[in-house]
Amino acid sequence: MDHLREIETDGISNPREISRLAIDIGGSLIKLVYFSRDSSDHEDPLNDSVGVSNGVNGRLHFAKFETTKINDCLKFISANKLLLGGFQHQENPTNDRSFIKATGGGAYKFSDLFKEKLGISLEKEDEMDCLVTGADFLLKAVNHEAFTYLNGQKEFVQIDHNDLYPYLLVNIGSGVSMVKVDGDGKFERVSGTSVGGGTFWGLGKLLTKCQSFDELLELSHRGNNRVVDMLVGDIYGGMDYSKIGLSSTAIASSFGRAISNNNELDDYKPEDVSRSLLRMISNNIGQISYLNALQFGLKRIFFGGFFIRGQSYTMDTISVAVHFWSKGEAKAMFLRHEGFLGALGAFMSYDRHSLDDLMINQSVQIPVDASCGTDTNYNPLERDLNETESMQCSVYQA
Amino acid sequence: MDHLREIETDGISNPREISRLAIDIGGSLIKLVYFSRDSSDHEDPLNDSVGVSNGVNGRLHFAKFETTKINDCLKFISANKLLLGGFQHQENPTNDRSFIKATGGGAYKFSDLFKEKLGISLEKEDEMDCLVTGADFLLKAVNHEAFTYLNGQKEFVQIDHNDLYPYLLVNIGSGVSMVKVDGDGKFERVSGTSVGGGTFWGLGKLLTKCQSFDELLELSHRGNNRVVDMLVGDIYGGMDYSKIGLSSTAIASSFGRAISNNNELDDYKPEDVSRSLLRMISNNIGQISYLNALQFGLKRIFFGGFFIRGQSYTMDTISVAVHFWSKGEAKAMFLRHEGFLGALGAFMSYDRHSLDDLMINQSVQIPVDASCGTDTNYNPLERDLNETESMQCSVYQA
Repeated sequence: MDHLREIETDGISNPREISRLAIDIGGSLIKLVYFSRDSSDHEDPLNDSVGVSNGVNGRLHFAKFETTKINDCLKFISANKLLLGGFQHQENPTNDRSFIKATGGGAYKFSDLFKEKLGISLEKEDEMDCLVTGADFLLKAVNHEAFTYLNGQKEFVQIDHNDLYPYLLVNIGSGVSMVKVDGDGKFERVSGTSVGGGTFWGLGKLLTKCQSFDELLELSHRGNNRVVDMLVGDIYGGMDYSKIGLSSTAIASSFGRAISNNNELDDYKPEDVSRSLLRMISNNIGQISYLNALQFGLKRIFFGGFFIRGQSYTMDTISVAVHFWSKGEAKAMFLRHEGFLGALGAFMSYDRHSLDDLMINQSVQIPVDASCGTDTNYNPLERDLNETESMQCSVYQA
Repeated sequence: MDHLREIETDGISNPREISRLAIDIGGSLIKLVYFSRDSSDHEDPLNDSVGVSNGVNGRLHFAKFETTKINDCLKFISANKLLLGGFQHQENPTNDRSFIKATGGGAYKFSDLFKEKLGISLEKEDEMDCLVTGADFLLKAVNHEAFTYLNGQKEFVQIDHNDLYPYLLVNIGSGVSMVKVDGDGKFERVSGTSVGGGTFWGLGKLLTKCQSFDELLELSHRGNNRVVDMLVGDIYGGMDYSKIGLSSTAIASSFGRAISNNNELDDYKPEDVSRSLLRMISNNIGQISYLNALQFGLKRIFFGGFFIRGQSYTMDTISVAVHFWSKGEAKAMFLRHEGFLGALGAFMSYDRHSLDDLMINQSVQIPVDASCGTDTNYNPLERDLNETESMQCSVYQA
């Protein structure tokens, strides 16, 4: 409901013309990306405030909903008139209202629901296609998109467009997909794991009675995994197992300490349980990702998906896992718009089918200002882009 | 307590002379291996019932205790006089009573306890050394030790002694160690994961209130993981995600279904939770093992450790994971004495230090009859060796 209120307020105080909605419906979350034309731009079509000729200035907006609350999402689309206005096809102004681009499994599952409630078809785009297109777009077009995170230090990575490929894209949604990206539109899903964000949330909900992913994450900040995890020192009487390089504080067995006493679930603090769970899953994903990167000789691993949510502990654990197992050879990188890769890819796909002459030609041709959102003092180092947010951009006229 | 009773009864009905105890104290379990000389053999030192000249006939016995119940283990050792009799050093008959070979972290942690309660020192042997020695011994000396398990079919593997190496040894204890074995005594611990048997037991205990590992396993037999796991079909509205080869019944997110309704832990059957957990962990270990085998070009992966316990579902899941990810290139194999690798390795280590002239020369020189136990109709295809058991063998005189 926060999403609705936020956007409606924004809509009232700063009326924009909305167009081009794309949607990514995953197992846990629905992600929306839509473009709004600046009202000033609308009044003066030749306005060129970001120095782009023939461009339409505006903003890309991001929003998300839990998949179980899909009705909230439908109301949001309806209330914010996301299916109206905007870049209508000149010869057939109603054309772009008849469908929206959609990806993720929910594009299939909820197809009828969208038709029934909004009278709109979902034009389905392949999930992996969209993930890669979205990641490529972000990496090439957005400054300060990718960063490393190690020992609490966030550092932006300068992406060289000519030296981007190959890379491993790890998208951590409910489950995890690992995609080797070799070039523009050239990719293969090489691996994945069922231990992902849905596992954290699902197991966490059962163990802590938390009602939301964010609540569970919040808990983890205050937890101590040593209460629940069996450390090397617990087995070795406080000593390291130095011969194989395992310190006494290394986790020997996640949740292994729960076996060695008579405590029941209620005897543990939910914070500690949440922390162990987050550590276990992040570490596991980091390890499997690294092993896959190694298999294909990939030095760069980009992590996306809504599991991460800019969480220091999650990113630190993943980074440490990649660093540890690769002996420093491979590098974990994160994306600021991590959760919206698929939705962005679906958004980009409008052009590929040449359905509108007023759309993006190629993703790489969209200049996007990194100074996202309405906060002009925005400092990407200090803020995470997980909630509804927007970024300024221009869309070319064909 | 079952262990105690079982062995004591055996001791009374069929008195044997016990000697050579070795112990492996892990985070969750204590494993014992000890040798008993046949009483007939004792009466007639030249007895050669299995056709071995100069050999001492007898049995290798296996027993286990939970590490938290270490006092039961101490009582067991004491009550069964495992520190007395047997192959005493001729010149110094009390020599072999002053210490026992021990491995695992608990050899460090409980050293003082053994000294205090039994007046005995634990001579520590490296855990990885022992695992590999134990596995090598079993693979070379015991018929019908290794087997594959796929689609409910168990098939024994004929081990060619000249073509055993290299292999990956995956020992699933509380945590998991992955060891690349290149030759006799030539090995390296290349990887591991904290998601192991302790995780299954620890998380399972918290989720189901089960009081033992076996109870939790028993529950899993009757469970249905689809109640708790999010399948591809749950996301895709019942459809496959065929483009990337994921069927609608593939698990997209372990425990992911728990997020999509208002059920609390008590609303789920413990059987279903246990089943999902076992599947998640087995599959994850299978995948990481395969990725490591691939990295080093190893085609054979032997799985040991007490997590497996000859469980069909566990072995099937691990096998399917290795088969799936390797596209049939790599093979998962299991060991009948899976849980006793470390303890057997510690047992073998008595010889290496030349402490007794009446001991094993080299593990490979021990002929071991595969017809284990007291049951002469023993059929290894139908029985799992997880509880206290023994196998007939002869030990050479030097």
